[in-house]
Amino acid sequence: MSNHGARLVVPIDVKKKPREQKLPLHNRWHPEIPPVAEIRAGELFRVEMVDFSGGGITKEYTAEDVKFQDPSIVHYLSGPIRVVDADGIPAKPGDLLAVEICNLGPLPGDEWGFTAIFDRENGGGFLTDHFPCATKAIWYFEGIYAYSPHIPGVRFPGLTHPGIVGTAPSVELLNIWNERERKLEETGLHSFKLCEVLHSRPLANLPSTYGCVLGKIEEGSPEWERIAREAARTIPGRENGGNCDIKNLSRGSKVYLPVFVEGANLSTGDMHFSQGDGEVAFCGAIEMSGFLELKCEIIRDGMRKYLTPMGPTALHVNPIFEIGPMEPRFSEWLVFEGISVDESGRQHYLDASVAYKRAVLNAIDYLSRFGYSKEQVYLLLSCCPCEGRISGIVDAPNAVATLAIPIAIFDQDIRPKTTGVPTGPRLVRNQGPPQCNYDGNLPITKNPSATT
Amino acid sequence: MSNHGARLVVPIDVKKKPREQKLPLHNRWHPEIPPVAEIRAGELFRVEMVDFSGGGITKEYTAEDVKFQDPSIVHYLSGPIRVVDADGIPAKPGDLLAVEICNLGPLPGDEWGFTAIFDRENGGGFLTDHFPCATKAIWYFEGIYAYSPHIPGVRFPGLTHPGIVGTAPSVELLNIWNERERKLEETGLHSFKLCEVLHSRPLANLPSTYGCVLGKIEEGSPEWERIAREAARTIPGRENGGNCDIKNLSRGSKVYLPVFVEGANLSTGDMHFSQGDGEVAFCGAIEMSGFLELKCEIIRDGMRKYLTPMGPTALHVNPIFEIGPMEPRFSEWLVFEGISVDESGRQHYLDASVAYKRAVLNAIDYLSRFGYSKEQVYLLLSCCPCEGRISGIVDAPNAVATLAIPIAIFDQDIRPKTTGVPTGPRLVRNQGPPQCNYDGNLPITKNPSATT
Amino acid sequence: MSNHGARLVVPIDVKKKPREQKLPLHNRWHPEIPPVAEIRAGELFRVEMVDFSGGGITKEYTAEDVKFQDPSIVHYLSGPIRVVDADGIPAKPGDLLAVEICNLGPLPGDEWGFTAIFDRENGGGFLTDHFPCATKAIWYFEGIYAYSPHIPGVRFPGLTHPGIVGTAPSVELLNIWNERERKLEETGLHSFKLCEVLHSRPLANLPSTYGCVLGKIEEGSPEWERIAREAARTIPGRENGGNCDIKNLSRGSKVYLPVFVEGANLSTGDMHFSQGDGEVAFCGAIEMSGFLELKCEIIRDGMRKYLTPMGPTALHVNPIFEIGPMEPRFSEWLVFEGISVDESGRQHYLDASVAYKRAVLNAIDYLSRFGYSKEQVYLLLSCCPCEGRISGIVDAPNAVATLAIPIAIFDQDIRPKTTGVPTGPRLVRNQGPPQCNYDGNLPITKNPSATT
Amino acid sequence: MSNHGARLVVPIDVKKKPREQKLPLHNRWHPEIPPVAEIRAGELFRVEMVDFSGGGITKEYTAEDVKFQDPSIVHYLSGPIRVVDADGIPAKPGDLLAVEICNLGPLPGDEWGFTAIFDRENGGGFLTDHFPCATKAIWYFEGIYAYSPHIPGVRFPGLTHPGIVGTAPSVELLNIWNERERKLEETGLHSFKLCEVLHSRPLANLPSTYGCVLGKIEEGSPEWERIAREAARTIPGRENGGNCDIKNLSRGSKVYLPVFVEGANLSTGDMHFSQGDGEVAFCGAIEMSGFLELKCEIIRDGMRKYLTPMGPTALHVNPIFEIGPMEPRFSEWLVFEGISVDESGRQHYLDASVAYKRAVLNAIDYLSRFGYSKEQVYLLLSCCPCEGRISGIVDAPNAVATLAIPIAIFDQDIRPKTTGVPTGPRLVRNQGPPQCNYDGNLPITKNPSATT
Repeated sequence: MSNHGARLVVPIDVKKKPREQKLPLHNRWHPEIPPVAEIRAGELFRVEMVDFSGGGITKEYTAEDVKFQDPSIVHYLSGPIRVVDADGIPAKPGDLLAVEICNLGPLPGDEWGFTAIFDRENGGGFLTDHFPCATKAIWYFEGIYAYSPHIPGVRFPGLTHPGIVGTAPSVELLNIWNERERKLEETGLHSFKLCEVLHSRPLANLPSTYGCVLGKIEEGSPEWERIAREAARTIPGRENGGNCDIKNLSRGSKVYLPVFVEGANLSTGDMHFSQGDGEVAFCGAIEMSGFLELKCEIIRDGMRKYLTPMGPTALHVNPIFEIGPMEPRFSEWLVFEGISVDESGRQHYLDASVAYKRAVLNAIDYLSRFGYSKEQVYLLLSCCPCEGRISGIVDAPNAVATLAIPIAIFDQDIRPKTTGVPTGPRLVRNQGPPQCNYDGNLPITKNPSATT
Repeated sequence: MSNHGARLVVPIDVKKKPREQKLPLHNRWHPEIPPVAEIRAGELFRVEMVDFSGGGITKEYTAEDVKFQDPSIVHYLSGPIRVVDADGIPAKPGDLLAVEICNLGPLPGDEWGFTAIFDRENGGGFLTDHFPCATKAIWYFEGIYAYSPHIPGVRFPGLTHPGIVGTAPSVELLNIWNERERKLEETGLHSFKLCEVLHSRPLANLPSTYGCVLGKIEEGSPEWERIAREAARTIPGRENGGNCDIKNLSRGSKVYLPVFVEGANLSTGDMHFSQGDGEVAFCGAIEMSGFLELKCEIIRDGMRKYLTPMGPTALHVNPIFEIGPMEPRFSEWLVFEGISVDESGRQHYLDASVAYKRAVLNAIDYLSRFGYSKEQVYLLLSCCPCEGRISGIVDAPNAVATLAIPIAIFDQDIRPKTTGVPTGPRLVRNQGPPQCNYDGNLPITKNPSATT
Repeated sequence: MSNHGARLVVPIDVKKKPREQKLPLHNRWHPEIPPVAEIRAGELFRVEMVDFSGGGITKEYTAEDVKFQDPSIVHYLSGPIRVVDADGIPAKPGDLLAVEICNLGPLPGDEWGFTAIFDRENGGGFLTDHFPCATKAIWYFEGIYAYSPHIPGVRFPGLTHPGIVGTAPSVELLNIWNERERKLEETGLHSFKLCEVLHSRPLANLPSTYGCVLGKIEEGSPEWERIAREAARTIPGRENGGNCDIKNLSRGSKVYLPVFVEGANLSTGDMHFSQGDGEVAFCGAIEMSGFLELKCEIIRDGMRKYLTPMGPTALHVNPIFEIGPMEPRFSEWLVFEGISVDESGRQHYLDASVAYKRAVLNAIDYLSRFGYSKEQVYLLLSCCPCEGRISGIVDAPNAVATLAIPIAIFDQDIRPKTTGVPTGPRLVRNQGPPQCNYDGNLPITKNPSATT
Repeated sequence: MSNHGARLVVPIDVKKKPREQKLPLHNRWHPEIPPVAEIRAGELFRVEMVDFSGGGITKEYTAEDVKFQDPSIVHYLSGPIRVVDADGIPAKPGDLLAVEICNLGPLPGDEWGFTAIFDRENGGGFLTDHFPCATKAIWYFEGIYAYSPHIPGVRFPGLTHPGIVGTAPSVELLNIWNERERKLEETGLHSFKLCEVLHSRPLANLPSTYGCVLGKIEEGSPEWERIAREAARTIPGRENGGNCDIKNLSRGSKVYLPVFVEGANLSTGDMHFSQGDGEVAFCGAIEMSGFLELKCEIIRDGMRKYLTPMGPTALHVNPIFEIGPMEPRFSEWLVFEGISVDESGRQHYLDASVAYKRAVLNAIDYLSRFGYSKEQVYLLLSCCPCEGRISGIVDAPNAVATLAIPIAIFDQDIRPKTTGVPTGPRLVRNQGPPQCNYDGNLPITKNPSATT
């Protein structure tokens, strides 16, 4: 047998369900979820992963599965993986774990993915008040390229990356998370202006035993019950890395993760064939199953050496990332701008979230003049390699955010022209992505761009 | 005489004060400020500009001029320039003005710039609660490169651009601006969470006759009085372009600006030798005098063809930008992440501004381990070609923002290492940038990273 | 079974010898070698390939296998593959076959490669008069990166590509090849100045039955004998593509190949994990087994539409290539120059081969000051992503050729410094690559750089 | 007066002739040409330069000036410039002079250039047997972009650079040059196969007093006579740098030049707005007047530390170059290949010059299908930012050279298409560049691509 190439430490069989995999998966963060594998620093190893929904969202051309997707089960992660050094001594709290992404990709034989808009009743997305209905696009991969029958006329190379890379939190860190997120839920809507716009989205996703999967811990046991009530959901990025959704974390990148428990207990998942900055449709990257080939190093005492707590405790730190050299070259970009004035004309104060929302809406309206439905563009901007920038954050009262789209991904020239008009509806809307009707009972905000 | 090369339409003499220039400058937006020049579509023309402060901030190694900088006079702009087509017919409301940036740079003989932190009492910056004191770094240019005696060990090629490119607003648009910004000022602090952090910064800068310069309109005349009371300040980016601070708007870029008045009345200013995304220190790019060589095209009826109003009126539109192909290649980036949990540990809901603040603070603390003072890094991140991204905006409750810094701008390797410790204070703090004491009477937020 | 992902049309078992593979391989070009598979235009398919030597060169740390490598068997190719359009109509002579490289890489479980200098007696390389001994370096792959225990201190991302992509020649084209190469062999040494330098290398490799492998044609049969005597060797690039060794033909590239026989009969092989322009050590890329995922389109009548015969017949055409967008970013390069004055000081007239030889020798001597043996650098420059350019080809009498090396592949700064000296021999020569003694009886040219 | 910005050490008045400039120019290499200026290491200084022809080729739309251009006067250089260190001690033989190109560009008010094919009788170019007639295209600059009325449909950003950067040779080096080039002239045609193709081009350009300009040395004096008879022509690149025509030597690059005489005596000239690798039309870049802003460092004893003599004497060395980070991004390239089989079908042995000639001819024929005359394409490939690579130099008998053209410089899609035919003659030939009739009496080689 070859002693070169990556050692497979977490295998996945894509024909099996999440709970039937050889090594158990998990979908919560908790210090007591036992490792399923161990690797040595310096060793090249391979982790395989189901897609975030564990096959719940299928390759059928329907959005019904998206509409009724159970949000309590996301994200199925592979791991935890215990990391030891060359002498067999495990990573320890206070160390930094340097994780190099040497290679990654879809699982062989499973070269497809999906991008979806969640129904407003089911979590929605960044623009849920404009696009409340469950919608889905299927993407097929041709090597580095993705194309979709639901968004014709675009094809682009993926900047493939894991949405989630994280270490297990300690008990103390878990308590901090749960407390601050619970407080947010309690304080509620009235104190957050953005919520007026996104008011149907949950403010936070607190621990719940419903849907909880805890790896080797037997479901239903007293231990499982206790841990399930404490374990943090995987939706947000946090101090341990987690769902940071940094789209450039592709081949050749490195993540420097703080270690909070012995062995580091590294978990990965939520593979994205490609994602736009912000992943605006929420389920918005090209979601897929996939593999990572990783190499870890332990930086002893690295938290003290390199990280500074940015809050009341020593645990309020964030990972550091290093972007690799392998990336598609795009030479020209069309850039849409948003300022922090909302759709009602109301002025917000240096609010980058509102500004970015405006930039995305501007881009959607613009591109819908080139033959696309707005849902198609919303899906596209969520998953294509577009860049979301905070351009100005000091010029009161307006934050300026920009969304830059590589022109080369389209098979038509999408730039404004001195003469002529945009091509017009070349693509018929009902050839677009499958979409459910919205049957929620919340009022939908009216605004110029949502109509028609 | 050569009939090729750019025709100089607005000359600047850097030895003269703003009010002594051959063609009068202006520092407000108003439809009635008369054009100082006229150009034809397709013609290459040159506009020269004073720095945004009009020489108020000097190349002396002191921060006193920053501390007492009069904020009412920013930004001195060159123009307005009236644009007509090949037949002499002016641009008209509803058209789009495509402005190509063919070339730009510092003014010959004036190859230097400054980056400054405003005093908290005088407007502050993005991190004013951490860095309340007026501080200044001087940069010298060696062709495409900038270096500063105040931030030793870095040298980088500038991605030079104009901070401000804009057309004159119509009366209607001006009214919209003034009304919404006045409302913000009136609603005030209690409704904006970010203000709890940035509470000493003005919420908006409403029209004021003080410091107002209106081009050819005689100061003190009744007409001047009326216009000065209506004319919008130039600090924020708005529907007309304005202070959008998009750092990639360099050679080869194009700006598609909506036209609101006959002739478009294009103005430019606030030249930046280089800027980081966000321009976090506020006066935070490498500010300089400079020139632009531009070429305009008129896209007749372009607003209807290409822009969608994103608010209650047809004027609620934003410009579109096209990024050119000329850019320094950086192959490796170190990336800092912030999530929307503030320094007190409080959880905010999908707030990209808070997340970006955290990312910048993380970067400052990290780089201060390599021999820099925090003020030096704050200045550096404000002006070097770093990228500020909205990486995740849907994973409730955390927005994830990232700040990516090109590794090659440093003369040391700033990556975390498996062994050893960061170089340690190679640079002594008191060789750093000149800084004033803060003598304000507002309480300064205490947090771990602000203390030494 | 998944109907997405690439269909495997030529499988390889790397544990088996070339003649034991499920589908027979071939190592000659001939119109009568029968296809082993058929694909449809538009279909994504996968071809697997042995390394060019078919396992003859092993991963043992010895150069003996290189020294006695049988040159008659190179290169083992996979195919031919017959191409038909959506209606089942085959590609026809006169068409162009557009072959898109959607993905590629090493074969799973076989992630290693080798770079070798052939012995002067056995074909040698570009610098055989300086480096006459068989030498070999083994490379291991960590995802996109390669490193070698024989050339420590370098690690680089591969720009992986097939060395050989070609269609079958027609009888007429085969005759042209054989005739012109036979004429070269006959005219011989006296008429080619470069041969004075490279005089032990064969001028051409004419058809030979020895070592010949012809796919499905039974070895030893009369048909085999006839074809083997006619079939062209695979060493040079020619009108059908063939061994063009264009190092940028990586993911996302396209090759437009002329079609000379019905079905096109596409063959591929000689996979390179990475190669420098020129592949100077001859066996000089990082040679490996591997796979290609391809998609073909037929451009009917494309030769007439797009190609111009560049010689006496309509068959004197060359393929066209399109380079894809996926490439490692290198921001800084150190460039070595050569002019067409040879090592003896003799002036050659606009000879780019001599100039490039000088550039490579200059680079070898320079880098050997940083702790490497010259053999190590020769191997490195042959396989790392360096660029060989024809910078000036008109400034008589000197051609100027340049070799640009990305600085980032080294773990030390290899630039000249104002102070200090190069690091000095950090790496001891006998830790370098395994090397055989040269026991040939040809005199070795003496020159300053070959000594020591 | 500002003490920042570059100090102007060699001014040029473009309205004056070469011999009327304030500081005298020179067009030969010789150790005794006296310096016209002195600079200190570390100082930023500015050198201005006439175009290589000193205004001999004008912006008139005629090729008559090209046809009768006096080849004896090229290239007019600015300098020599004496370099001393911070203590005033001059650079010495054996040092390396590191010359950083901080900025460069056309001279203000003179923003235009030309690309020309020399008449076969007057030196010709790389393809003189195919294109024997004097031809000229005028280019106008719009900032970083160039466009030509003679080659419509293309516009590209210039990678501006000096064609010539060099130090003065010592007497010994000058003797080596003169001797080896004289030997070439004497050995002559019969020994160089390339000459059979390019037989009307001079093999070398030996010293001649005719047209000689020697800076401060008074013309006609005995000293002038002696030096003029010894001084080397500036056409080829040589050990001192000289006319190396490396197109990437743009902003941010560095040249490490050997020092042969006290003070180094640096000269520069032959500014190119843009050039393709090889500069195939000979007068083939976009030739212009221009300026350089430079910074020098002296690396004491640098020749011994960093360079290896590559010939019989210690003077047989070549400069080293470092390419800067500022470059236009091009994401897609169309690549043409040539192999070392000439137009008559004759096989050459690993001859990169023949292979590159074929690649260029293939590109010319291909692009002429998109509405261009062949002369237009020849001019274009000579001056646009195309890359000429030595792809394979070991696969006997064929060298493989490639020419890669950035697709984005055209206003049409020049890729082969599955359906349709190339656009066809959109541009009429007689709107092309001005061209003289060829009235030479040498037979013109007939080949398929030259006809029609």
